[in-house]
Amino acid sequence: MKATDWDGFFADARTLDLEDYILLDYFLECAGDPRLAAAHFCAEQSTAQWRRVGHDEDLRPRFGARVLDLEVIASDLPAFSYGVEAQTPGPISACRLRIAHPHGNFGARIPNLLSAVCGEGVFFAPNAPIVKLLDIHFPERWLAHFQGPRFGVAGLRERLQVYDRPIFFGVIKPNLGLPPEAFSELGYEAWLGGLDIAKDDEMLADVDWCPLERRAALLGAARRRAEAETGRPKIYLANITDEVANLADLHDRAVAQGANALLVNAMPTGLSAVRQLRAHTQVPLMAHFPMIAPFSRLERFGIHSRVFTKLQRLAGFDVIIMPGFGARMFTSDQEVRENVEACLAPMGHLKPSLPVPGGSDWAGTLERVHQRLGTVDFGFVPGRGVFGHPMGPRAGATSICQAWEVIANARSVQAEAEHCPELRAAIEAFGPLPGAGA
Amino acid sequence: MKATDWDGFFADARTLDLEDYILLDYFLECAGDPRLAAAHFCAEQSTAQWRRVGHDEDLRPRFGARVLDLEVIASDLPAFSYGVEAQTPGPISACRLRIAHPHGNFGARIPNLLSAVCGEGVFFAPNAPIVKLLDIHFPERWLAHFQGPRFGVAGLRERLQVYDRPIFFGVIKPNLGLPPEAFSELGYEAWLGGLDIAKDDEMLADVDWCPLERRAALLGAARRRAEAETGRPKIYLANITDEVANLADLHDRAVAQGANALLVNAMPTGLSAVRQLRAHTQVPLMAHFPMIAPFSRLERFGIHSRVFTKLQRLAGFDVIIMPGFGARMFTSDQEVRENVEACLAPMGHLKPSLPVPGGSDWAGTLERVHQRLGTVDFGFVPGRGVFGHPMGPRAGATSICQAWEVIANARSVQAEAEHCPELRAAIEAFGPLPGAGA
Repeated sequence: MKATDWDGFFADARTLDLEDYILLDYFLECAGDPRLAAAHFCAEQSTAQWRRVGHDEDLRPRFGARVLDLEVIASDLPAFSYGVEAQTPGPISACRLRIAHPHGNFGARIPNLLSAVCGEGVFFAPNAPIVKLLDIHFPERWLAHFQGPRFGVAGLRERLQVYDRPIFFGVIKPNLGLPPEAFSELGYEAWLGGLDIAKDDEMLADVDWCPLERRAALLGAARRRAEAETGRPKIYLANITDEVANLADLHDRAVAQGANALLVNAMPTGLSAVRQLRAHTQVPLMAHFPMIAPFSRLERFGIHSRVFTKLQRLAGFDVIIMPGFGARMFTSDQEVRENVEACLAPMGHLKPSLPVPGGSDWAGTLERVHQRLGTVDFGFVPGRGVFGHPMGPRAGATSICQAWEVIANARSVQAEAEHCPELRAAIEAFGPLPGAGA
Repeated sequence: MKATDWDGFFADARTLDLEDYILLDYFLECAGDPRLAAAHFCAEQSTAQWRRVGHDEDLRPRFGARVLDLEVIASDLPAFSYGVEAQTPGPISACRLRIAHPHGNFGARIPNLLSAVCGEGVFFAPNAPIVKLLDIHFPERWLAHFQGPRFGVAGLRERLQVYDRPIFFGVIKPNLGLPPEAFSELGYEAWLGGLDIAKDDEMLADVDWCPLERRAALLGAARRRAEAETGRPKIYLANITDEVANLADLHDRAVAQGANALLVNAMPTGLSAVRQLRAHTQVPLMAHFPMIAPFSRLERFGIHSRVFTKLQRLAGFDVIIMPGFGARMFTSDQEVRENVEACLAPMGHLKPSLPVPGGSDWAGTLERVHQRLGTVDFGFVPGRGVFGHPMGPRAGATSICQAWEVIANARSVQAEAEHCPELRAAIEAFGPLPGAGA
């Protein structure tokens, strides 16, 4: 690219109608002049060759992605991060870029958005092998084409008639290997103990040793029994993650049998397939997070997890399960909060999604999650903390409810456990209680 | 996990019916005893809790993933790679693992496979934050459920009646911004110059300024004219990457108008959606590679690109476009060869896919690609090298054919260019010629 060509990929935000652009924040390590690298970076994700040979034309004003801000964070770095080797025709710099990408290039389509903003162009721009897409911002003009969550946080709360506390989920365990009969008994026990939502593991499929339809029938019946006995609405969250060709049929069969929410592993199944299911669904859709960490774990390479959270909300998930607090999940507190924010903050006309930060939770970790989020608009999702409880899943669920009662009344979990056998047993089995700072 | 529990996640391969297992090779960095980390790693990707409380049962023999080989590559590392911080209850080791994962846990389903072998369990196993899925091996018992490529390399060669040389692709450029009329003229010129396949850019969608149906109609007509004039079959490869809900309809409309191969960006659209399209398609399906590099670029974290190549072949792509040779693509020669091998090597009953290693190619890079692959079973896919050629796209395509004639006759490209104006102009515009080792 000639130096005189660079300017066509830069713009002053005040000169653009920002409703026509998706805004993208990137981290970039590049060799040579950062302005040239930034221009190439825009060209590669939009109009890489902006005129035909022999024609006097310039496609950049309408179709070019443009740099709005370029901040050089560090210069003369000794090498690219993470041992990536690349030609280095010049000194290496680390930059932050804000880019305005014209969504008219591809329209309101998730696969085409992804191809543009984190596709070949972005990860194969010349002399810039280290890239992280840090954040994405959609204008209402583009969001208007998307349905987003059908129920959202308020709709889910209404279904459960739970308004003033976190929603209590539990992953039925053993996660794999039980027949539907034994599996449904575990769910029933946990509902009686106080769980709102008993869910399939994200790895449980429509398999011959535990067919979805039979599972949904038994858990649907158990759910209705639990609702009658407790006087409270309950949800059985069936995992319909499967080949895309089967999703609508599995939805229909699972719901007909008594599942009243459905789990889909968003990235393995595909966000676009979820958008299609959203147009069809009768019940809340809930996302699990396989295949996001390999994009998001490293600080300076890949795609930030909040981008996926926003995309899952866009695709129409009412609930987004995500890596939560605690060293076990290799996710900083800040990143967890950013993902919770991406669920709950205004996003055009889209309803909020309920964030469910998870990972090795039990009654004793509830206070930490609540304190760090500063809201009750979250889901809490133990697995072993309910189903590995030494007194059984009913007691495991009860231990969660007991912990919440204590927290809601601003008392000490440790002290109150003396009067709550289930909570005490949880602390003995899974403790010690994490400190507020742990 | 108690020390006595570890053994349940190890097995001697000779004691297993390997047709029941998918074999997985991982790189892993872990803190503490590598055998314990390996056992946890298997538990997390299969049966994380293998018995109910109060029951005498063990679900591991049937449902547990098992370590077949554990090789400790390095011990007492000072830290995890890539600056990842994690609790380290013990010294840090780097390992290679081979794991047998029972596919009966999820069945012949791509989303469920992904959820198990590169999902939450794999990237959130205790004390093992650095993981790379290096390779995957499918037994015929599992592959038998998949169609794989409908045409494969032989079928594509038959359609083009090209048997003894690489297939010449070209990405029509400018990639974005031209109306169908101008766009189709470029394709027509390139076919006349000798291109086999003129293709849409992976970012070109069914947009109002270049609707797919109109584009396919004009390029279909141009293709038939070019076929009549050259006496050779030609292919227009239309990009139908779009929301999953639209794929079958876009297939039908594009093919009806004259597209005779279809491009889908595999990962942004979803491999499972491609499998669904494969069952419907009348024409060869071709894959482009957005969203693979963020998984695969780093040596010790993520998912190796050959895993995606195998998955794309499994999903049914006849052609797989992938990062090719040259420093520009940030991909080692070895990795390119591994991906080509993953396309062409035996894989149960699945036909081979045509590998198309691409990236900033032009006539002068053809010899390098051919030499490094040692086969003519590949596609060659310039963009600017054809459509940015100073004499225009017809000459650009001719320069590719001239280069091949020279190579096939074991003559020197540089020397023969003297007699070939198009090739000579290409060298002047895009050269110098890379050395065989460059």
